[in-house]
Amino acid sequence: MTVGEIARLLGGAVQGDPATAITGVNGLNEAGPGDLCFVRNDQFLPMLSETKASAALIPKPVDPLPLPAAIVVAEPEQAFVRVLHMFAAERSPRPAAGVHERAWVAPGAVLGANVSVGPGAFVGEGAVLGDGVVLYPGVYIGRGSEIGPDTVVYPNAVIREGVRVGARCVLHAGVCVGSDGFGFVPMGGAWVKIPQVGTVEVGDDVEIGSNTAIDRATFGVTKLGNGVKIDNLVQIGHNVQIGAHSVIAGMAGVAGSTVIGTQVRIGASAGINGHITIGDGASIAARSGVTRSVAPGQVVSGFPAMDHAQQRRVMVVQAQLPELAKRVRQLEARLAALEDNKEL
Amino acid sequence: MTVGEIARLLGGAVQGDPATAITGVNGLNEAGPGDLCFVRNDQFLPMLSETKASAALIPKPVDPLPLPAAIVVAEPEQAFVRVLHMFAAERSPRPAAGVHERAWVAPGAVLGANVSVGPGAFVGEGAVLGDGVVLYPGVYIGRGSEIGPDTVVYPNAVIREGVRVGARCVLHAGVCVGSDGFGFVPMGGAWVKIPQVGTVEVGDDVEIGSNTAIDRATFGVTKLGNGVKIDNLVQIGHNVQIGAHSVIAGMAGVAGSTVIGTQVRIGASAGINGHITIGDGASIAARSGVTRSVAPGQVVSGFPAMDHAQQRRVMVVQAQLPELAKRVRQLEARLAALEDNKEL
Amino acid sequence: MTVGEIARLLGGAVQGDPATAITGVNGLNEAGPGDLCFVRNDQFLPMLSETKASAALIPKPVDPLPLPAAIVVAEPEQAFVRVLHMFAAERSPRPAAGVHERAWVAPGAVLGANVSVGPGAFVGEGAVLGDGVVLYPGVYIGRGSEIGPDTVVYPNAVIREGVRVGARCVLHAGVCVGSDGFGFVPMGGAWVKIPQVGTVEVGDDVEIGSNTAIDRATFGVTKLGNGVKIDNLVQIGHNVQIGAHSVIAGMAGVAGSTVIGTQVRIGASAGINGHITIGDGASIAARSGVTRSVAPGQVVSGFPAMDHAQQRRVMVVQAQLPELAKRVRQLEARLAALEDNKEL
Repeated sequence: MTVGEIARLLGGAVQGDPATAITGVNGLNEAGPGDLCFVRNDQFLPMLSETKASAALIPKPVDPLPLPAAIVVAEPEQAFVRVLHMFAAERSPRPAAGVHERAWVAPGAVLGANVSVGPGAFVGEGAVLGDGVVLYPGVYIGRGSEIGPDTVVYPNAVIREGVRVGARCVLHAGVCVGSDGFGFVPMGGAWVKIPQVGTVEVGDDVEIGSNTAIDRATFGVTKLGNGVKIDNLVQIGHNVQIGAHSVIAGMAGVAGSTVIGTQVRIGASAGINGHITIGDGASIAARSGVTRSVAPGQVVSGFPAMDHAQQRRVMVVQAQLPELAKRVRQLEARLAALEDNKEL
Repeated sequence: MTVGEIARLLGGAVQGDPATAITGVNGLNEAGPGDLCFVRNDQFLPMLSETKASAALIPKPVDPLPLPAAIVVAEPEQAFVRVLHMFAAERSPRPAAGVHERAWVAPGAVLGANVSVGPGAFVGEGAVLGDGVVLYPGVYIGRGSEIGPDTVVYPNAVIREGVRVGARCVLHAGVCVGSDGFGFVPMGGAWVKIPQVGTVEVGDDVEIGSNTAIDRATFGVTKLGNGVKIDNLVQIGHNVQIGAHSVIAGMAGVAGSTVIGTQVRIGASAGINGHITIGDGASIAARSGVTRSVAPGQVVSGFPAMDHAQQRRVMVVQAQLPELAKRVRQLEARLAALEDNKEL
Repeated sequence: MTVGEIARLLGGAVQGDPATAITGVNGLNEAGPGDLCFVRNDQFLPMLSETKASAALIPKPVDPLPLPAAIVVAEPEQAFVRVLHMFAAERSPRPAAGVHERAWVAPGAVLGANVSVGPGAFVGEGAVLGDGVVLYPGVYIGRGSEIGPDTVVYPNAVIREGVRVGARCVLHAGVCVGSDGFGFVPMGGAWVKIPQVGTVEVGDDVEIGSNTAIDRATFGVTKLGNGVKIDNLVQIGHNVQIGAHSVIAGMAGVAGSTVIGTQVRIGASAGINGHITIGDGASIAARSGVTRSVAPGQVVSGFPAMDHAQQRRVMVVQAQLPELAKRVRQLEARLAALEDNKEL
């Protein structure tokens, strides 16, 4: 594509040569000839002189322009994301619509228009796939599960029976949704399984990372709100509820029955206890171990997690503990000397 | 079903209307019309007046009964688990017996009676499936592996070659049993693989959660005892041994060659060092990092893990470290003042 | 095999009876009749009298020999690894070459000589499999991905489109390479996906453990150098770079855009922040949380990670915090007594 063509699609104004060819996208520092990059806001415009990109999306005209071309747009980052979507569609086109001859779709499953079911995928009895759903090879959709329109499920992901997934979701390779929650009762020295007869409901526009496991409820529902984004290798326990637009980074875990509000941010490898509440807009720092409920908007860190500002003060002292212990020893010696002296 | 029918199956006595229809099961607080719930013991009987359930399993008669019906049984929780099993069997019936035309069973594999092998499942040469084994779609059973009677393996789980799994086990979606242990020798700046020629033996009544990985031994056997229950996303290293009825919560890890006793409890995200011993009945708190052996019955927490009572005392002081540091500064100032004064 | 035959293959000298039959391999302490074991160096030779093995690889002759036979070789451990390779090849032979009738290879994919593609495996358009590549059942190779010669991909592993994997790699069951990195921009209270248009390049002789997830770059490349070894359940974020011969233990995670040098060792469950640098030859202890860049050769531990020697001193004091707090209380009391006394 040329800079001129991209500018037309974005509704932006070209500076420099509109015939400049664009073959890739990249960050300003990593970009090379043929790449398009972007400058988030005015403050970073001076960095344009350091890039080797052929063109950049910029928030206002620059004179002189230190690279072959630029496109002036109101919101360069958002415009850049739109360009990325074009490149992504070209590099990873959706698989062709249709049920592959090597897929297995049970009688009684209902498929919308333009559904794509790859070789080796399985769709159980009574399952419902909305229009435009893509099931990559090896995906398993259990009996009676419903997948909303335009949701994409990547290879070998498993959605067990009776689960509902909304529209426009992305479930990455190896995801398991709807496996049994971890529930047992002790009986005579052994553990007896509590059958997990509940289900999972995933809202619209949810993304779930590779090999993440989201368990079905014991009874009732494990629920992910609209727009929730979950990274790889995360565990969501049975009966957990996650509010809309919350984000969970990789390797974090949420134990059973915990209720997470909307727009919560949970950092990588954080662990959240069961049966607690995380208020709307709260932030849980990476590697936190959250043992108690967190108030709306609160920022916590550490293990056991506490208010982040207080945790930082704790960590400063903690790093200096050997010195603190030394000062206590010195105090003891000086005090003993004073005491001896007084006694004399 | 009606309350009368359920009472008959449980051998319990009906209070209220035996014709009350039951369409679901739920917790006492979450239940609505049509649901059956339970009250664990006498102490919680007053909560009956708050439930919207249509019926409850209760340990003794209640007068007046604040809901349409109840069933009096000796052990309400255990009876409730039996009811859950009935509902589970109805909602998620076992797949029909038989080898699906889209499954691949190698010549020389031995299948018991009533085995179910779903589309896309693979059974290698010389593998042995006991009576009633269920392999969901996409499951892989390697060459020469043996799966005991009535074991259920959920979609896309992988059991590598030469592994033995006992009877009545449940292996959830994405489980990997018998992958190579992580062993290398340094040689000239690179790492040379130590071939892992051992295997894995899983006892009877073991449950293994989604995407959990249990590695085969370098030589010898990685062993899980009878009744072991493991949650999602857990790693069990090569040559680990886990005693009967031990329980491991999600995202925990056990490094190579560690020996875990019977009825041990390991909390979520705990990590256990290699080549140590965890005694029978020990408890490892969530997020512990266990660096040394733990005595039978001992409760440990923290990192490095120590006796839990001691760890709690440490954590109390740790949370107050900034104040402790301030008190030391004040002591220093006061002591300096005294010393100055004395010198004068 | 006999001891004599093994000695011939290793180029070693037999002590004792060369006709001794060897049916297995094991560690010196675990070995029984029929097993071959090894003694790493002279220092451990006295342990030979405790083994029940039928034969051992030893660094120099022993007189009298306390077991039926021995083979004298210059490097017993390396020779033992060679013997393990022989046993491994016998126990887990490579699947036969050829594309199984139940595999799906898209038109336009290019397959080298002696490639094995198992039932249910998928090879996308334009993918290239080098000579001797083995794809176990259920493996997914996306459109245009290239797999180097003699690389083995175990069941149900997923390699997304446009990814390059080198020669002689081992990818274990459930591995996901090339899923989208975790990138979103906030827009009006929701999160908008940043399409991940980059890729992943994996060098030669790389091993990746079960259910590990390695994300593709936002743009550009997520890169694993030659000889990198990664254990199970590890997450490698988008745009991470890992230098040659670095080793990452189980359940560790590396956040986006971090650059890891060569021959770095990362312990189990360690977490490494994004956008930092870990110098060549550095060591990150198990369970560390690394928040800042680490210098070449540095050893760090703890969270936030600091120099390991300093961290150990911190941990010693930390375990004694309740006593330290008590000593401060005593100091306060003694000092108050002195001050009172002075005022009198």
